[in-house]
Amino acid sequence: MRMRRLWRARRRSPPLMLLALCAASTSALAADSPAAPAGSLKTMADVLAASKPSDWRALDPENTLYMELASGRVVIELAPRFAPKHVLTIRALAREHYYDGLVIERVQDDYVAQWGDPDDSRSTGTVPRSLAAEFSRSSDGLDFARLPDPDTYAPETGFVDGFPAARDPASHLAWLTHCYAMVGAGRDNDANSGGGRELYAVIGQAPRSLDRNVTLLGRVVQGIELLSSLPRGSGPLGFYAHPSERIPIRSIRVAADVPEAQRARLEVLRTDTQTFTDLIESRRNRREAWFKVQADRIDVCNVPLPVRSAPAGDGS
Amino acid sequence: MRMRRLWRARRRSPPLMLLALCAASTSALAADSPAAPAGSLKTMADVLAASKPSDWRALDPENTLYMELASGRVVIELAPRFAPKHVLTIRALAREHYYDGLVIERVQDDYVAQWGDPDDSRSTGTVPRSLAAEFSRSSDGLDFARLPDPDTYAPETGFVDGFPAARDPASHLAWLTHCYAMVGAGRDNDANSGGGRELYAVIGQAPRSLDRNVTLLGRVVQGIELLSSLPRGSGPLGFYAHPSERIPIRSIRVAADVPEAQRARLEVLRTDTQTFTDLIESRRNRREAWFKVQADRIDVCNVPLPVRSAPAGDGS
Repeated sequence: MRMRRLWRARRRSPPLMLLALCAASTSALAADSPAAPAGSLKTMADVLAASKPSDWRALDPENTLYMELASGRVVIELAPRFAPKHVLTIRALAREHYYDGLVIERVQDDYVAQWGDPDDSRSTGTVPRSLAAEFSRSSDGLDFARLPDPDTYAPETGFVDGFPAARDPASHLAWLTHCYAMVGAGRDNDANSGGGRELYAVIGQAPRSLDRNVTLLGRVVQGIELLSSLPRGSGPLGFYAHPSERIPIRSIRVAADVPEAQRARLEVLRTDTQTFTDLIESRRNRREAWFKVQADRIDVCNVPLPVRSAPAGDGS
Repeated sequence: MRMRRLWRARRRSPPLMLLALCAASTSALAADSPAAPAGSLKTMADVLAASKPSDWRALDPENTLYMELASGRVVIELAPRFAPKHVLTIRALAREHYYDGLVIERVQDDYVAQWGDPDDSRSTGTVPRSLAAEFSRSSDGLDFARLPDPDTYAPETGFVDGFPAARDPASHLAWLTHCYAMVGAGRDNDANSGGGRELYAVIGQAPRSLDRNVTLLGRVVQGIELLSSLPRGSGPLGFYAHPSERIPIRSIRVAADVPEAQRARLEVLRTDTQTFTDLIESRRNRREAWFKVQADRIDVCNVPLPVRSAPAGDGS
């Protein structure tokens, strides 16, 4: 479906051999997987069309940042359950207008876009300049929607509060995973040298080796393409070689501080719902006619996390 | 290292508890992994600095395409061992100048950039308009440099001829994997409706559910950022809503047909070498001072595939 071309190709007699071989291989892969649950023939479009209003939650304005660029608004949902001190600090920095007039200074292809103060000279006022790392937390008490499939990097992966995450039953730790559009706090070599003055978003293949090496604190829920389509920096690590190339940040605001009429009224699909479980299944095994071979698997960073405009009349 | 900021943060006393917990977790993850081989303290920079000329191979001009855009050249290495018929056909189309003046018509964020003929009206001359799918092939006789780590989607992953690939020992099949910068042949719902008139490159998180559903036939070895930084299309599936938004393709040429002085003299690191094995280890466990927790794992789509300009004097 997603790869479907707009044009129709002429039909030819299909040589079936390769497809038959592929099907055999799929069966082999699927042998140790659970049987498909009832209702698994639904596509993601079917699942979303059947969703109930209670499957969605409005973004909490206190946990939402708007980064305003000349090209538009990037909406970031913060993750206080994983990075409570970083969230407090970034909220405070935004409220001091710390970020206003700073820049996107680094866009490294297949990796990250990063923003902050290239000179590191701006005062943070009363806000601490760095924070203890929040690389992981106890998994106790977390509602962890676990994926059934193996992951290269972690014993278990899944979702907490709409964020992709991993969990280690042995150590009882959980952490956010570096999937596309996740936002973290850049740091120097000292693990505790971050804190939110420098932030980055993932714009490429999930750099999972960063997991538990950087504090992840949120996710871009709208506008990631404003970052991912920026020109790549030609300097080392994708930093812009010349200051004139940097992209100005007009402001970063906590949504709660923005007049209601100017807020993005967004809802995200709750990940603790049957609807989300159904969505995962619809992506583990793609039922669109285009697909010939089912993966019967999914990586935590390949699961879509749907966002929509709040339906009209749903005042909140 | 890669995330290192340009500025130095002030030092604070590091609270060690979180780091200690992380270290414990890493040990748990690493329990069933082989001991680190000798020499594993090398970074990727160390590995590449120690590489020998014979660790590199020049691109074969017959297996190299240049896509010329106003913004520069995209260099694609073709994979005839996995998609021999598609490679023959695309080479023939390039030699008929089929692609010249066509367009990049689709850029879907975190997915693909796709190019071809939006009207599907251009003649292919004597070249067939569609081809039998080449989704997988026999794994017999392939020099498969296997990764030691588990993969979500395939029984085994690794590298063949410099391309990321997967292998299923049960069915004796191998196939290329949809990693960042891989190039495939778009198709309609009919598995055999592709053939090379529409091509795409991956510009986001590896869409591995496409593996064995589309014919992959090559990889962008230079210039992927010319595709990944394009504006995203606002139409369905990321197609440009208005024809004026499409990006013109000046030409696509087989490198062998381009005067030698105008060729990109590139070399790729051979993946059947000890140097590449060392490089993998340098990325499974990052030795740069910045990293606090070692993954001791790597995903096939996270392994860098180095490309360099041929050293001066290395005429070929």
